[in-house]
Amino acid sequence: MKKVVLAYSGGLDTTFCALHLSKDLGYEVHAVLVNTGGFSKDELESIESRAKSLGIASFKILEVVDTYYQEVIKYLVFGNVLKNATYPLSVSAERILQAKSLAEYAKSIGAKAVAHGSTGAGNDQVRFDMIFQTIVPDIEIITPIRDLKLSRQEEIEYLKKHGVSMNFEKAAYSINKGIWGTSVGGKETLTSSEFLPEEAWPTQVTETTPKEIKLTFVQGELKGVDGVAFENPVDAIQKVQSLAAPYGIGRDIHVGDTIIGIKGRVGFEAAGPIIIIKGHQLLEKHTLTKWQMFWKNQLSEFYGNHLHEGHYLDPVMRNLEAFLSSTQEFVTGDVRVLLQPYRFTLLGIHSEHDLMSSKFGSYGEMNKGYTGEDVKGFTRILGNQTSIFHKVNSHD
Amino acid sequence: MKKVVLAYSGGLDTTFCALHLSKDLGYEVHAVLVNTGGFSKDELESIESRAKSLGIASFKILEVVDTYYQEVIKYLVFGNVLKNATYPLSVSAERILQAKSLAEYAKSIGAKAVAHGSTGAGNDQVRFDMIFQTIVPDIEIITPIRDLKLSRQEEIEYLKKHGVSMNFEKAAYSINKGIWGTSVGGKETLTSSEFLPEEAWPTQVTETTPKEIKLTFVQGELKGVDGVAFENPVDAIQKVQSLAAPYGIGRDIHVGDTIIGIKGRVGFEAAGPIIIIKGHQLLEKHTLTKWQMFWKNQLSEFYGNHLHEGHYLDPVMRNLEAFLSSTQEFVTGDVRVLLQPYRFTLLGIHSEHDLMSSKFGSYGEMNKGYTGEDVKGFTRILGNQTSIFHKVNSHD
Amino acid sequence: MKKVVLAYSGGLDTTFCALHLSKDLGYEVHAVLVNTGGFSKDELESIESRAKSLGIASFKILEVVDTYYQEVIKYLVFGNVLKNATYPLSVSAERILQAKSLAEYAKSIGAKAVAHGSTGAGNDQVRFDMIFQTIVPDIEIITPIRDLKLSRQEEIEYLKKHGVSMNFEKAAYSINKGIWGTSVGGKETLTSSEFLPEEAWPTQVTETTPKEIKLTFVQGELKGVDGVAFENPVDAIQKVQSLAAPYGIGRDIHVGDTIIGIKGRVGFEAAGPIIIIKGHQLLEKHTLTKWQMFWKNQLSEFYGNHLHEGHYLDPVMRNLEAFLSSTQEFVTGDVRVLLQPYRFTLLGIHSEHDLMSSKFGSYGEMNKGYTGEDVKGFTRILGNQTSIFHKVNSHD
Amino acid sequence: MKKVVLAYSGGLDTTFCALHLSKDLGYEVHAVLVNTGGFSKDELESIESRAKSLGIASFKILEVVDTYYQEVIKYLVFGNVLKNATYPLSVSAERILQAKSLAEYAKSIGAKAVAHGSTGAGNDQVRFDMIFQTIVPDIEIITPIRDLKLSRQEEIEYLKKHGVSMNFEKAAYSINKGIWGTSVGGKETLTSSEFLPEEAWPTQVTETTPKEIKLTFVQGELKGVDGVAFENPVDAIQKVQSLAAPYGIGRDIHVGDTIIGIKGRVGFEAAGPIIIIKGHQLLEKHTLTKWQMFWKNQLSEFYGNHLHEGHYLDPVMRNLEAFLSSTQEFVTGDVRVLLQPYRFTLLGIHSEHDLMSSKFGSYGEMNKGYTGEDVKGFTRILGNQTSIFHKVNSHD
Repeated sequence: MKKVVLAYSGGLDTTFCALHLSKDLGYEVHAVLVNTGGFSKDELESIESRAKSLGIASFKILEVVDTYYQEVIKYLVFGNVLKNATYPLSVSAERILQAKSLAEYAKSIGAKAVAHGSTGAGNDQVRFDMIFQTIVPDIEIITPIRDLKLSRQEEIEYLKKHGVSMNFEKAAYSINKGIWGTSVGGKETLTSSEFLPEEAWPTQVTETTPKEIKLTFVQGELKGVDGVAFENPVDAIQKVQSLAAPYGIGRDIHVGDTIIGIKGRVGFEAAGPIIIIKGHQLLEKHTLTKWQMFWKNQLSEFYGNHLHEGHYLDPVMRNLEAFLSSTQEFVTGDVRVLLQPYRFTLLGIHSEHDLMSSKFGSYGEMNKGYTGEDVKGFTRILGNQTSIFHKVNSHD
Repeated sequence: MKKVVLAYSGGLDTTFCALHLSKDLGYEVHAVLVNTGGFSKDELESIESRAKSLGIASFKILEVVDTYYQEVIKYLVFGNVLKNATYPLSVSAERILQAKSLAEYAKSIGAKAVAHGSTGAGNDQVRFDMIFQTIVPDIEIITPIRDLKLSRQEEIEYLKKHGVSMNFEKAAYSINKGIWGTSVGGKETLTSSEFLPEEAWPTQVTETTPKEIKLTFVQGELKGVDGVAFENPVDAIQKVQSLAAPYGIGRDIHVGDTIIGIKGRVGFEAAGPIIIIKGHQLLEKHTLTKWQMFWKNQLSEFYGNHLHEGHYLDPVMRNLEAFLSSTQEFVTGDVRVLLQPYRFTLLGIHSEHDLMSSKFGSYGEMNKGYTGEDVKGFTRILGNQTSIFHKVNSHD
Repeated sequence: MKKVVLAYSGGLDTTFCALHLSKDLGYEVHAVLVNTGGFSKDELESIESRAKSLGIASFKILEVVDTYYQEVIKYLVFGNVLKNATYPLSVSAERILQAKSLAEYAKSIGAKAVAHGSTGAGNDQVRFDMIFQTIVPDIEIITPIRDLKLSRQEEIEYLKKHGVSMNFEKAAYSINKGIWGTSVGGKETLTSSEFLPEEAWPTQVTETTPKEIKLTFVQGELKGVDGVAFENPVDAIQKVQSLAAPYGIGRDIHVGDTIIGIKGRVGFEAAGPIIIIKGHQLLEKHTLTKWQMFWKNQLSEFYGNHLHEGHYLDPVMRNLEAFLSSTQEFVTGDVRVLLQPYRFTLLGIHSEHDLMSSKFGSYGEMNKGYTGEDVKGFTRILGNQTSIFHKVNSHD
Repeated sequence: MKKVVLAYSGGLDTTFCALHLSKDLGYEVHAVLVNTGGFSKDELESIESRAKSLGIASFKILEVVDTYYQEVIKYLVFGNVLKNATYPLSVSAERILQAKSLAEYAKSIGAKAVAHGSTGAGNDQVRFDMIFQTIVPDIEIITPIRDLKLSRQEEIEYLKKHGVSMNFEKAAYSINKGIWGTSVGGKETLTSSEFLPEEAWPTQVTETTPKEIKLTFVQGELKGVDGVAFENPVDAIQKVQSLAAPYGIGRDIHVGDTIIGIKGRVGFEAAGPIIIIKGHQLLEKHTLTKWQMFWKNQLSEFYGNHLHEGHYLDPVMRNLEAFLSSTQEFVTGDVRVLLQPYRFTLLGIHSEHDLMSSKFGSYGEMNKGYTGEDVKGFTRILGNQTSIFHKVNSHD
């Protein structure tokens, strides 16, 4: 029997896929859940027990949060990547790593096919297909939901017919949770004009007392929180998340271009990612030169867009990562952050690589390194070309 | 007697300059205050009466806020310019227009010199000199403070000797106010680690009730607030400022590269500018294509930096403005903004140019314009090169 | 009967399409040849007489070379666009304008369909479809060659069956001629390693005597050759072409990315375009500032690529054109060019907008505008940040 | 006695400096010639014997051509750097390495000063000062020619007075020779309109028979010529130079922005560098993806400009080099080049990393990887946003 690896989340669509692949298409179904940090232990157990009840060949959880950090998140921090100046790419980044892990797993067990439950309407189908066709070009891609175009009700009927009982009620808000943020979609995000109501946010505000925390970065990576060192940045990220999330920080709505050309809108909450990126960026303002920052911005914008659109395996991404890594050599120091309900303030930084070091003069006070005469000469030369341009082209 | 035009603000430094130019250097001093929206009527009257008491040839106020908007601010909005993702260039932008206005005035009255009170330590000297040497290349630039390197105390002695009585106490925080934001410097901003205390902010928080406001943009320019049309965007900006400032919105500290190579840090409050830029940017996310946004971001970053560094007269700035103006053709619509103490939320937009228009399919739902099969083909081709790359270079 | 507008060139494929659309699909066929400057009068007459013999509803020649210049070529000159530093986009640019003209024509006669003879293997199908689906979204696109996948022999049989007699021999080299260059494909260009032989080039070398010519640009547009003014740059381009082509100038092979992801290689000869672009670029080196040139290069590369890939109607193209046009204000002057067999030399320029004007000092001689002391100060400040960086981060 | 390290070339200016520093300023003069590949053995011996006759403390030749390659030239090849699409930065690149070598030598012998013979009119003074003030910030920089502003005749008188006899005649063309090209300045290059005459070029044309050569690149570095392997790319560069220079290839005039804001013009011949860069670029067209090439171009332009302006020690340069190095992983293969008098032709390439590999379909023929239907779907989605944009904003 031909093996298929199915990207399985335990929801209606992928449960349908599992049965359909097995019962209708005759595959030996290997359901795989790729955990990028969004599932609790309880959730995983419940998904596993459902999966096993479907009579499929195997169910496996791939725990990839460390790989996810090393291969994707790290560079999103280095690049301070916020798509459209807002969104930490919570879902986009995750899908890439999920697809990659699935493809490698499929290869390892000699599967003849991989399947995913994406519809024909969104970004995820493109991300999955892009990664699959490159890593496992000889393996068939099966997408039952996209191909059969069943309604939700038809899927439910099918499952019921095959004796599957699960909660078929549709939640008011669809949630996708991962270590780099949680997305929230609902009736408001289908409009251009409405914001999500308070109750739609998965994390409700339970902390109201202002609290100062300290983030410690070592060469661009978060390695400490409040003076406690973390060998694994994943743990440090989760620590920041646990401290900041109860304040309702990092909520917003992302509006952007989908891969398929239409505009989409999605809510997200990402207290940890937003604070880490903004804190990291502040540290860079103190430790990088002007042109390092300029080029980081130009390249990171492309890096984020290209990742978002599923081009993770384009070798240019490795080249951009080499650039980004190279910039982080001295991005080491502490960032002071004040948490308050719904907002945070970057108070300041300490770093031995701080180029604002008062050893070299403070801005606004006379500097030891140069004189007013130097600045006169500087300005005369700096503006020389523009000055010549206007002399040559003046109409006087 | 040779005429000198002096950039005059009524403070210690420029008062010293007025006397020094007149008494010691024998110039006919024409003091000019260029108002870019930062002075109240009372302040202007008080400055004028002091100026006239100095026995100089003339004192003049140039009201340039409209020109400032048309020649600078407009493009900062079009480009969503926030230096280092934070600072609306409140001071930098203003200096450019002040220098330009002074130079043109000096030309018009046949002055032989222009003078400004900048020290040799900051950005402003470069901005003034750059503009002067281009617009009035044959006129001498005189900078007494930079050249004489007097201490504050020496300046005070000099003024007292010449019978000038003014308040010589130094304020705890130095403030620079203009229509595009107010900067705040103090002992905290000379460090890398400390934030400004509540009492340092010029505008204290007096509003605590959440309020929704509506911004109306027409081709990228703010032309209405809460349904009231404003012919002149300057008035609309001031309206937003008056509504939002009492909430303490738009406070932050900017850290960045000065023109002379050291890092500097300055606080600012800019409720109006921040809300307008962010609202404008949201409207663009709905009305511009992907590549319009990409290139706007790349170019605006340079535009902001180049302006900050005094290169306003480099013709490349006119070319970038032509680009930016061209992008605004359909950036028309309303933005809903919720004001709350210390923060604001962009609720959503309405625009007849909204590319998210449900007429063309909603994201996540099947679209009328294409099928799942189309997306399969799309993805196959889109990822074709990367796929070939990995086949050619795989080590299997 | 439903009308179809067919992009008709008189070759095997489009002749087949004409008959197929008429006889098999029952359309009222309106064959249209869009002339972008590549057809001689004789060729057009011969194509017309063939077309009329096919028994179709109408045949029309759209003469669009002026529009082609105004809407496309002009910007390729402004941007000095040479794809991959080599290719003037001879074919890509032409297809865009052809598609646009066809779409507008189809609209004007109320056609229900447009048809083109592209195969499923190349760039042209994408360019045609992209333009059609945007300008005439409600009109069907028919592509018989792509859909039927007939072999050359099958097409010939079909034509013979319908009594069409034409020269069915395949030329050794396929040629596409237009005002912006002629492409040449053959067995060598299907390899990565072989160059085209002398006899493959459409224009053979007949001139061997070196000749100096003078190009006159006015605001970036070619308006004169050898002192003769041309109101219409199209005529000036053809004049340069006629002078330079017999020298065998502007031959090369372009290697690049096709829209569909594979690499392609094609020969081209484009004496006029190459000389005009290089001459224009030299004039810009003398008349633009450093940052104007920097940004022109960055943006033009994208402009060329985006055009090549059929994205002409993306509004970002209009924005980039606004930028490019704005840069040309002072790109006015004469360029001296020496023509020799297989090569040309740019001898120099004359321009009243030349920023190298000796009025402002010659390079290497002491300048009136500044002193050695100025340069010392300039350098001290210019290198200040890098100097601080190394002090802060030295390991000594 | 205080030690000074003098950048010494044996010409009039640096001979004057040697004496002046020693006789007038009382320094212990250590003259250093940094050889970046431009001096023959005979020239070096003659310079050495003159230097020793001046009665200075020491004369030393630093042979740095390998370092020059490893730290600068390599990246100019990776980036295909031709400033203003023309100039391989022959002189600019060399000065950087010379300054760096001098600074490190000065440090190693405990010098209190470094001196160079630049005038106050050119680029070199900035490059030397920039490097010195960063590597040896505590060492004084002495520039007698810039400071004393002596005429050529005054220098000669001074030398004669001190008993120095050398050839004081000024050559018609000033030549600067190095491994990455030879610059040529003369009365023509001081104009905007005149080209250099045949006799001005240091290498006269002595080869007229066409010859095909083969360049072998390994990960972007030239490692073989005509099938002969070279461990050291410096030797391979010199081999190409020796083969191509007698054809008069690689001659041109560079027009560009000097660091001090005026435009400058200089002739150069650089047969080897031009052929190597163009050959390398062709190999990249076959082995890199579209976006790798796009970003390489954007970044290399800045890299070249920043190097040209003396910013070699800005850490952003190391970041860009990390990017460039990363792109070269598969830039391995052979390039066929045909040499002819005054020109060369890139015939084609062979590479096992060629993405044009016919295994994956040839352009223009039907590809195994996709169908015409795929392309239809691709195009529909690719143009989707532009299509929506026009629907939303049409004025119909």
